[in-house]
Amino acid sequence: MVKHTFIALAEHAGKLRKSILPVKLTYKNMLRDPSVKYRPFVPPKMTKRIWPDKTIQKAPRWLSTDLRDGNQSLPDPMSVAQKKEYFHKLINIGFKEIEVSFPSASQTDFDFTRYAVENAPDDVSIQCLVQSREHLIKRTVEALTGAKRATIHTYLATSDMFREIVFNMSREEAISKAVEATKLVKKLTKDDPSQQATRWSYEFSPECFSDTPGEFAVEICEAVKKAWEPTEDNPIIFNLPATVEASSPNVYADQIEYFATHITEREKVCIATHCHNDRGCGVAATELGMLAGADRVEGCLFGNGERTGNVDLVTVAMNMYTQGVSSNLDFSDLTSISEVVQRCNKIPISPRAPYGGELVVSAFSGSHQDAIKKGFAIQSKKQAQGETQWRIPYLPLDPKDIGRDYEAVIRVNSQSGKGGAAWVILRSLGLDVPRPMQVEFSNTLQKNADALGRELKSEEITKLFKETYNYNNDEHIYVTLLNYQVEKLNSERRALAGQVEVNDKVVNIEGYGNGPISSLVDALSNLLNVKLSVESYCEHSLGSGSATKAASFINLSYIRNNDHATSNMWGIGVSEDTGDASIRAVFATVNNIIHSGDVSLAKQ
Amino acid sequence: MVKHTFIALAEHAGKLRKSILPVKLTYKNMLRDPSVKYRPFVPPKMTKRIWPDKTIQKAPRWLSTDLRDGNQSLPDPMSVAQKKEYFHKLINIGFKEIEVSFPSASQTDFDFTRYAVENAPDDVSIQCLVQSREHLIKRTVEALTGAKRATIHTYLATSDMFREIVFNMSREEAISKAVEATKLVKKLTKDDPSQQATRWSYEFSPECFSDTPGEFAVEICEAVKKAWEPTEDNPIIFNLPATVEASSPNVYADQIEYFATHITEREKVCIATHCHNDRGCGVAATELGMLAGADRVEGCLFGNGERTGNVDLVTVAMNMYTQGVSSNLDFSDLTSISEVVQRCNKIPISPRAPYGGELVVSAFSGSHQDAIKKGFAIQSKKQAQGETQWRIPYLPLDPKDIGRDYEAVIRVNSQSGKGGAAWVILRSLGLDVPRPMQVEFSNTLQKNADALGRELKSEEITKLFKETYNYNNDEHIYVTLLNYQVEKLNSERRALAGQVEVNDKVVNIEGYGNGPISSLVDALSNLLNVKLSVESYCEHSLGSGSATKAASFINLSYIRNNDHATSNMWGIGVSEDTGDASIRAVFATVNNIIHSGDVSLAKQ
Repeated sequence: MVKHTFIALAEHAGKLRKSILPVKLTYKNMLRDPSVKYRPFVPPKMTKRIWPDKTIQKAPRWLSTDLRDGNQSLPDPMSVAQKKEYFHKLINIGFKEIEVSFPSASQTDFDFTRYAVENAPDDVSIQCLVQSREHLIKRTVEALTGAKRATIHTYLATSDMFREIVFNMSREEAISKAVEATKLVKKLTKDDPSQQATRWSYEFSPECFSDTPGEFAVEICEAVKKAWEPTEDNPIIFNLPATVEASSPNVYADQIEYFATHITEREKVCIATHCHNDRGCGVAATELGMLAGADRVEGCLFGNGERTGNVDLVTVAMNMYTQGVSSNLDFSDLTSISEVVQRCNKIPISPRAPYGGELVVSAFSGSHQDAIKKGFAIQSKKQAQGETQWRIPYLPLDPKDIGRDYEAVIRVNSQSGKGGAAWVILRSLGLDVPRPMQVEFSNTLQKNADALGRELKSEEITKLFKETYNYNNDEHIYVTLLNYQVEKLNSERRALAGQVEVNDKVVNIEGYGNGPISSLVDALSNLLNVKLSVESYCEHSLGSGSATKAASFINLSYIRNNDHATSNMWGIGVSEDTGDASIRAVFATVNNIIHSGDVSLAKQ
Repeated sequence: MVKHTFIALAEHAGKLRKSILPVKLTYKNMLRDPSVKYRPFVPPKMTKRIWPDKTIQKAPRWLSTDLRDGNQSLPDPMSVAQKKEYFHKLINIGFKEIEVSFPSASQTDFDFTRYAVENAPDDVSIQCLVQSREHLIKRTVEALTGAKRATIHTYLATSDMFREIVFNMSREEAISKAVEATKLVKKLTKDDPSQQATRWSYEFSPECFSDTPGEFAVEICEAVKKAWEPTEDNPIIFNLPATVEASSPNVYADQIEYFATHITEREKVCIATHCHNDRGCGVAATELGMLAGADRVEGCLFGNGERTGNVDLVTVAMNMYTQGVSSNLDFSDLTSISEVVQRCNKIPISPRAPYGGELVVSAFSGSHQDAIKKGFAIQSKKQAQGETQWRIPYLPLDPKDIGRDYEAVIRVNSQSGKGGAAWVILRSLGLDVPRPMQVEFSNTLQKNADALGRELKSEEITKLFKETYNYNNDEHIYVTLLNYQVEKLNSERRALAGQVEVNDKVVNIEGYGNGPISSLVDALSNLLNVKLSVESYCEHSLGSGSATKAASFINLSYIRNNDHATSNMWGIGVSEDTGDASIRAVFATVNNIIHSGDVSLAKQ
């Protein structure tokens, strides 16, 4: 019955809007063969090309879009407090152009724009994005009113795909819409007598430029330029975005060069790049774009932005810095900058991200570590001769320049050679470990790292080193020296007599040799009833000035109690007195031998 | 007294080895001005250059060095079990050349090489790195003995910096050492009658090529080539590493083109790139290197490797795939590949890493979301007409190609427009939300997201949507329809009579209109003593085939009880019967109005 009475509605149902759902259904019909599903980007034909012969010689104008394009792309956007903190950080770094918001889109963005206008230094231009629609432009101008410097940024679909799919608009319609918006901005800003306190700039983005035919990009920008009437002193900004990275970076550079050489009144035009990173080439596209004529670079710190992000401005700027070109941006306090960015964006910086990543100055492989050690040694010599250039293998930049310690450079795991651990000991204890001792300690470390299945921390390496070599008798002590005397019998023979404490008893010792160490070793051989021989000995100064100490390394060979095999052991002594350091090293070694169980105290 | 007796030792102390510690001291003397500390890379002069006019047309030979170069750089290296798992994953992806180890460096690496030799398919070449030293080469050949295909990879310092700092070796010495090592490898492999079961290939790396004068790189490789005597069928591999990325990628391409056009017997030479990423341009350098003549690409999955890593092979291969060129590597199961890689490397893939990152197909901004929705709608129409090309704004590749659902594409936070939430509802409930309802719901969502300060999950959006619009009366029910009849009075007038349950009482209702909905709304107006009017109504099918349902959206206006202002409310009904769906939508709306408190049930 109900059905019967609903003829009118059933008729209505016949006019049901077509569902836009069929994606799931039609996907099955799509071929996975990429040669059908995807088509290669067709690069423009270049009759001549000058950018590959150029190098980057000076800093571009920089535009940070962290607070607009970057913030829009965050799963969890910044709070207002975080936006403010980030804004001031950008100013501290040295940004003179900051895109802060889309003020016509929400009251929050409008309010933040007011904050930026009221808190920006006089030489910083506050930039806002707005669609090419009258009421939105009016609202945007309102948000920026009173700024010392302000930039209105409009955009319009110019690529075939964007025009057809997103706006269903012809080329002619696009041009007329862009011109209309530009004229409106002009009328409301630089032509408005009440707005003369502000230096108004204008930015226009043909979207997405990287997928727009070059001649049409030039054509629409010519029309916009005519409508805006820029000056050499305050050029119009044509931002040429790779909104989606569509081809290799050399093609983007060709596109920029085409635009830069075809737009008229070049001196009244500022060309900006705005590269995304879908093909992992955002930095390259930006750099080649600069070679091709771009004057200005837009991006975000550490490459934030929709999908794969905008180009990472830290990398672009630091790439210039490490080529001896000043970037005009100060990233020397990169640790604090990355802390703020990660906290506000809530997206971690990859450990391998250039410059910002935790691991970018770390070396784990033995050959890299050895080369770096050699590089530091040679560099310190050359510096003494007045050479200032940074030239260390595997370290393209000085870790200090990004706020890292040299301790971060060499890290030790089971893949590392002897050099790595030696470096850690050098940095932590100041000890220049003798080569055979490095080899032995490296084996000890490798076993430990393999057993743990992970990297060893510096503290762990240092602790293991001290234990292994009974550093200054700090670890194991069975025999303690109470006092001793050395008597010179003739030019080649010494006699040592002294007292040691063993098992709470005072015992006299006596020995002979060609010097104090050999005499002491002889005396201890007698005490322990084992033949000890000095296999290796060296000593070096530790620290400098009044605090100088000596570090002494000794290697003693002996016959093991249990299997009568020959073995040897290292020990280390440290003292302000060079002689005392050697004595301490002998006792460190002997106590280490006793501790190992190879030689028994009970036997004496 | 002690001091007195130690004259001999004090003399010894005078010969203390010079400490290599002065890094900390001398740093103070270094200027931070980059123009002094760092010098620009001087690119080679190119008289002609053909690579910028080329495009990538076919896949290179790929070499994965994940298990060697990659593993060496991990803070916590892979366990043997992990190396085995990774090895088989590389084979599944389609790698035919895999560098597995440095077998002369440790027993673990030697043993793993044996495993690889014994478990590799016949068409996969196992590659091992070795220094140019006799006993190490012998050990490496031993490790590879019995392989169907094996590649011995030697390397030597050729850049001025590496030769001088690391090896203190002249150019002539370098050439003679490289030739000697090559001859030894030849003697022990392809010239050894007992080694004929293996197809031996040879790779030589001049290190670091990117910092080596081009003519010297060619000179040493000519000498090595002469010593090896390669064939067209089994060319010698000259790997030209950017061990440290030293300049922009166009310069690397120039260097490759110089080498490729100056080395003789080009047909017997395979040129490989091995790019690191210190300047963030590893992918670009690899791609431009391929344009410039490279035949083979070395790297790691997701860009693992010392410091900033090796080039990411996933990106290079997928960049080809999305240009319609088959890469010969299968990354369709990228989810499982990235799981294995992250577990073995213990280094996370950045959320913004191309292809592998969690966020690479996500859109948060409203304008992007709207454009993507339009793109999907147009694409589904075009597909119905036989068009197979992928062409969606802001989505350079089909998320399905990297194992993502379309659900991952559009994500909603306070920065998102109406389109994003509409997409989520479309995907989760199948509802094509009417535009004015989208606008209203977007405001509701924005308030929620702002209050939470984070992204809203799909489930949260769906739940909020159902609550807000009393989806099918599931959320709020005050008035229930028991039965009803519609009588056709004349062509334009209907009468509805029925019974509803309100407050556990059965109440008769009656109303008039030009159709069943308007009659029902009139009846409910009488019941609630409020003037309800239909402002908007639409309905669409849901699903297809025998499971097809209808979804009905209704918007009713009314006068609020408390302030007598006009308000309106949406509700949704779903049923297998199109008429029933409309009835349900009316009741969903009316119950929603009662729930809001705007209209009181008590008043009826």
